[in-house]
Amino acid sequence: MITIHFKNQGQSLYEEIYEFIKNEIRLGNLKFNEKLPSKRGLAAHLAVSVNTIDSAYGQLVAEGYVKAIPKKGFFVCQIDAYLHGDEPIAADVKPLKIKENKKIKIDFSPNAIERNLFPYDTFRKIFKSTFNEYDLNLLKKPPIQGDLDLRKSLVKLLYRSRGVTCFEDQIIIGAGTDNLLQILGLIWGRDKGFVFENPVYLKAYKIVENMGNKVIPIDIDKKGIRIEPLKNLSNIAIYVTPSHQFPLGISMPIDRRIKLLNFSNKDEATYIIEDDYDSEFRYNEKPLPSLQSIDKNGRVIYIGTFSKSIAPSIRISYMVLPEPLLKIYLEICDEISSPVSSLEQKMIAEFIASGHFEKHVNKMRKVYKEKRMFLMDTLNQLKEKIAVTGENAGHHLLVQLKTGMTEEDMCERALKLGVKVYPISTYFINGVPEKYESMVLLGYGSLAYEEIDEGISILKKAWGI
Amino acid sequence: MITIHFKNQGQSLYEEIYEFIKNEIRLGNLKFNEKLPSKRGLAAHLAVSVNTIDSAYGQLVAEGYVKAIPKKGFFVCQIDAYLHGDEPIAADVKPLKIKENKKIKIDFSPNAIERNLFPYDTFRKIFKSTFNEYDLNLLKKPPIQGDLDLRKSLVKLLYRSRGVTCFEDQIIIGAGTDNLLQILGLIWGRDKGFVFENPVYLKAYKIVENMGNKVIPIDIDKKGIRIEPLKNLSNIAIYVTPSHQFPLGISMPIDRRIKLLNFSNKDEATYIIEDDYDSEFRYNEKPLPSLQSIDKNGRVIYIGTFSKSIAPSIRISYMVLPEPLLKIYLEICDEISSPVSSLEQKMIAEFIASGHFEKHVNKMRKVYKEKRMFLMDTLNQLKEKIAVTGENAGHHLLVQLKTGMTEEDMCERALKLGVKVYPISTYFINGVPEKYESMVLLGYGSLAYEEIDEGISILKKAWGI
Repeated sequence: MITIHFKNQGQSLYEEIYEFIKNEIRLGNLKFNEKLPSKRGLAAHLAVSVNTIDSAYGQLVAEGYVKAIPKKGFFVCQIDAYLHGDEPIAADVKPLKIKENKKIKIDFSPNAIERNLFPYDTFRKIFKSTFNEYDLNLLKKPPIQGDLDLRKSLVKLLYRSRGVTCFEDQIIIGAGTDNLLQILGLIWGRDKGFVFENPVYLKAYKIVENMGNKVIPIDIDKKGIRIEPLKNLSNIAIYVTPSHQFPLGISMPIDRRIKLLNFSNKDEATYIIEDDYDSEFRYNEKPLPSLQSIDKNGRVIYIGTFSKSIAPSIRISYMVLPEPLLKIYLEICDEISSPVSSLEQKMIAEFIASGHFEKHVNKMRKVYKEKRMFLMDTLNQLKEKIAVTGENAGHHLLVQLKTGMTEEDMCERALKLGVKVYPISTYFINGVPEKYESMVLLGYGSLAYEEIDEGISILKKAWGI
Repeated sequence: MITIHFKNQGQSLYEEIYEFIKNEIRLGNLKFNEKLPSKRGLAAHLAVSVNTIDSAYGQLVAEGYVKAIPKKGFFVCQIDAYLHGDEPIAADVKPLKIKENKKIKIDFSPNAIERNLFPYDTFRKIFKSTFNEYDLNLLKKPPIQGDLDLRKSLVKLLYRSRGVTCFEDQIIIGAGTDNLLQILGLIWGRDKGFVFENPVYLKAYKIVENMGNKVIPIDIDKKGIRIEPLKNLSNIAIYVTPSHQFPLGISMPIDRRIKLLNFSNKDEATYIIEDDYDSEFRYNEKPLPSLQSIDKNGRVIYIGTFSKSIAPSIRISYMVLPEPLLKIYLEICDEISSPVSSLEQKMIAEFIASGHFEKHVNKMRKVYKEKRMFLMDTLNQLKEKIAVTGENAGHHLLVQLKTGMTEEDMCERALKLGVKVYPISTYFINGVPEKYESMVLLGYGSLAYEEIDEGISILKKAWGI
């Protein structure tokens, strides 16, 4: 008979009985096919209720330690010895290196935004109006392609702001550009290739390389991606950032755009992926038209995000698919789930539909334009020592030191004095060409005027100029 | 000289001038290298300010139609003819088929939840406390592995509720199970294989198949995945749902668990993926321990989501990586971005940390238990015509018709009368074995008692039982 000294420490009686018998079986003290005491018998022996024993035996049966044979009783199941080697050394796990060095006083990050002007109140109101018991779709799995209201809002927004013409059915909502490229990979198949402009937003390149597709980097010249090296390629999707090349900041002029569009029209399996990542922020009079808006052959896959226009914390992106690709998507989309939560899609849909998005972007365009002018003016005082490049757009510009210091030195010396600048080399696929040596990115999105001022003073010291 | 009849319809003067010259260049009326009028000359001719011409010329230069040569003037650039074939027939795009047939009166979906008891007020409070100007991280790109607070909350929750032992550094936050499998694919590489229990959550299978990894389906018997067919395999990750096999509802007993763990320990590149998708909802006394909690060799990759416990609209999932895989992840994670927005991660972190999550799950467990009992009681009246299977857990059970009607007929006849049931065949990788014929899933998560009652009455009619 089983004897248990109840400890009564947080566990219920049935749990103690269950644990005891489970351990006896694990230790081999109760052997295969051995019969357990009857429920009544054990209950009387331990002075507990039959219900308690019932619960304990029930759990043992559910977990498979014990088998109930009707009219015969409860028997121990056959359980192999659990083989194990050394205990895994989980404590050895090193935390993910935190990228933000705490000693950084001024961070010229090209990806940061101005946080003080975020429309908190608007979002609070939108949350209130969006999150309620009466929207029965709020708790449902979001539609695979994305929330219909969000896609409808985007159709109008993209037409007004970028000349993009599409139907809501052509839009796919994803969780960031990387995620959209993964979805595109499913549509595209692994047998077809991708071309990436070089230098490039390297995560996009890596995601595609990791999918196993053939990936071809093609250098850019002063007008953007070169057309000549494309000539012998077919069955490719060509990833470009024509509005504002990332990271070099070039805008692709109309002659190169037309050459690229004409090239993409040469066969039926060549497409252009237009990543229009920060097109909202162009500081001369008119934004450049998107490639999609001048494409009459349906060869452009248009991609955008809210990272710059709302916040990098919002992981929502959108992709406009040309018809042939959309057809493939609709065939395979059953195999995909939407990666973006419903509430968030609905909030952003309302932010756009209510006109607040465009209002916010217009406000921020002025803010960033002025910051950029301030940074340019500050840098212009150094123009004998440095060259400044990058179109009048976006959240960063490029500084090249004429005094011949290596890029690595430039970054390290700045960091020692508490200023972080971003090396151009990390955006090149196979090493930096000579003409881009000694070049770093200076982002100004999140910085105050005084910080820009102080940052440049420190860089002057760090670089000895 | 250029002559423009200004229309003044919504466009500014500079835009009209810009559009006019752009079109003249596109049409070939202004030819390569042709010199544009001087800014002053054109301004005088059109009786507008020089600033207006400056803006128009500026935009033409920015877009690459015109080149400014210092001290010489503005010249037309060389632009190829834009070749295009037939206009793309975007209007032909068919909308994504909407899966929810409007004629469905009662939907026995296995994925739906009880929406009336969702803690709206709690989430409103959490939004208020989470979304504010003082959290400087709220607008930043979320950490690649996921929000630290959320990972810390999960460490405690998973230990308390599932016996899972891990550090927050071992947890990766993803956007759904599919997304985590994509991340795992990057860690795992394409040269290694995946085993899937069959039948299975088919999206998981498809995602992995689409990644290009070798995928091996292995049938399950009454204890879960069979061990014998694994014997000759190595370098594999074995995807299982031991707590509550999806869709068959089997719980893997301890002897099979130990056999599986022992198998996974045979080499250093074999792992078990434990998808613990609805383990919160087990209706006998104690939940079954997770496989991860009894694994002493670090061979289990633990995966979970909030689809059932909070709502399917929340696209947040988590994965606990054993140390060797975590090391690979940390090497490649620079190539990934977090797919989940910061606000949402912070809200769920707070929902867990405040104890509301467990309170909610405890409440819902009772609700689903009673619904299940009600459905069981209703079905028991038909037990001569049908067999009911599935553990006392989750949000669905399985009904097999003894009268020999095909599964397709069962579904179609029910649908004609407005009741949707879910065929088991859609979960099998290569066709349904005979013993699972005439079987459908009945989910009860979202249904009221009266709906369950009415639904079963209709099914009786539809199936002639």
